[in-house]
Amino acid sequence: MGLELYLDLLSQPCRAVYIFAKKNSIPFELRTVDLRKGQHLSDAFAQISPLQKVPVLKDGDFTLTESVAILLYLTRKYKVPDHWYPQDLQARARVDEYLAWQHTALRRNCLRALWHKVMLPVFLGEPVSPEMLAATLAKLDVTLQVLEDKFLQDKAFLAGPHVSLADLVAITELMHPVGAGCQVFKDRPKLAAWRQRVEAAVGEVLFQEAHEVILKAKNSQPADPIIKQKLMSRVLAMIQ
Amino acid sequence: MGLELYLDLLSQPCRAVYIFAKKNSIPFELRTVDLRKGQHLSDAFAQISPLQKVPVLKDGDFTLTESVAILLYLTRKYKVPDHWYPQDLQARARVDEYLAWQHTALRRNCLRALWHKVMLPVFLGEPVSPEMLAATLAKLDVTLQVLEDKFLQDKAFLAGPHVSLADLVAITELMHPVGAGCQVFKDRPKLAAWRQRVEAAVGEVLFQEAHEVILKAKNSQPADPIIKQKLMSRVLAMIQ
Repeated sequence: MGLELYLDLLSQPCRAVYIFAKKNSIPFELRTVDLRKGQHLSDAFAQISPLQKVPVLKDGDFTLTESVAILLYLTRKYKVPDHWYPQDLQARARVDEYLAWQHTALRRNCLRALWHKVMLPVFLGEPVSPEMLAATLAKLDVTLQVLEDKFLQDKAFLAGPHVSLADLVAITELMHPVGAGCQVFKDRPKLAAWRQRVEAAVGEVLFQEAHEVILKAKNSQPADPIIKQKLMSRVLAMIQ
Repeated sequence: MGLELYLDLLSQPCRAVYIFAKKNSIPFELRTVDLRKGQHLSDAFAQISPLQKVPVLKDGDFTLTESVAILLYLTRKYKVPDHWYPQDLQARARVDEYLAWQHTALRRNCLRALWHKVMLPVFLGEPVSPEMLAATLAKLDVTLQVLEDKFLQDKAFLAGPHVSLADLVAITELMHPVGAGCQVFKDRPKLAAWRQRVEAAVGEVLFQEAHEVILKAKNSQPADPIIKQKLMSRVLAMIQ
């Protein structure tokens, strides 16, 4: 058995892994795990990944979770262009710095924006107060400013003159609030220009394909009550 | 100017960086940034690190934040034994997996345990309700179980038979709740035995030296009211 990737493109880290594998012509079998159907909570999936989260990579009998670890594994196992994770000491450190920072910053705030604005009310039928939503979007705004001032600065890409894993992880993240209808790039010309550069570097067709699901998240059908009951506590823990 | 590390050993990521540099005889100038005096919020420190967080590495005119990025930088720049971040593809992926997982799991819950149990009430004079503290400690307990079941399993160390960055980041994290008086290792013989192995691998004298500050955190003097005012919103954001 070759490489298998367990993904749902609703999930940001899954989109990053998907785009990276496709862009670099890494052959893999796509195993779709439909999060909105609770397929990640099935006993079958728990056998593959006890934490019941996507993405998961399976390479023969080696199973790996955590998107950042998966992306690094793919850069090492396959011949991919250096710019994704540069050999240069300082350039690589800049990519690592972004990948470490984002977990508790951009990732958290983009995830909360999507769930508070769309997924909780539309998919799970749980209204979110305007005050809570406003607080979430205000925090997102602060984080976007850090992304621009501390990471992008006046460079073409987050870690330097070339596209890297940092840009891929960041752009797929930002498409979460975009999918929720947030005007993330409005009045942020530097971030908007960077987005265009990243899309061009990835390839627009692949970028659009990977984001079809999230851009339709607003139209999610309400969850089946049994599924909702299964998902609710995990969703609340995830967006705490 | 050689390598400079801006640290406060009250901070878990700072302890990991400090131990790693000392253990591997990496020469550095220690620049102490006293978090309890708000020195990280000074204009002088903002010049060095706009995010005003420790640890920070300065190597000539190259400045790097984020402990995981700093640890990886040090493994690459200096000749350190392979076991810290193994060349082997799968072993390295296991280290990366842990380093990615911990940000929103063990790190968050150990930090909250320390602040809810000790630092908020003792240092900042802000009582924490017994219900809030109990909820925090219950979440820590769940995460400790994941650490044991998913990461340690029956191995000697988190990523395999040898000590790695994963163990160093994890043990310095666990010393946060230990410093707060939590019985983290009680009724967890596997984790307790692992702790002994990690301490032995690091060296007990160095381990104790690096943890002196956190083990005395319970005796922190109440913050000066002006310092408290400066710190409060950042502390609440950090432990949210």
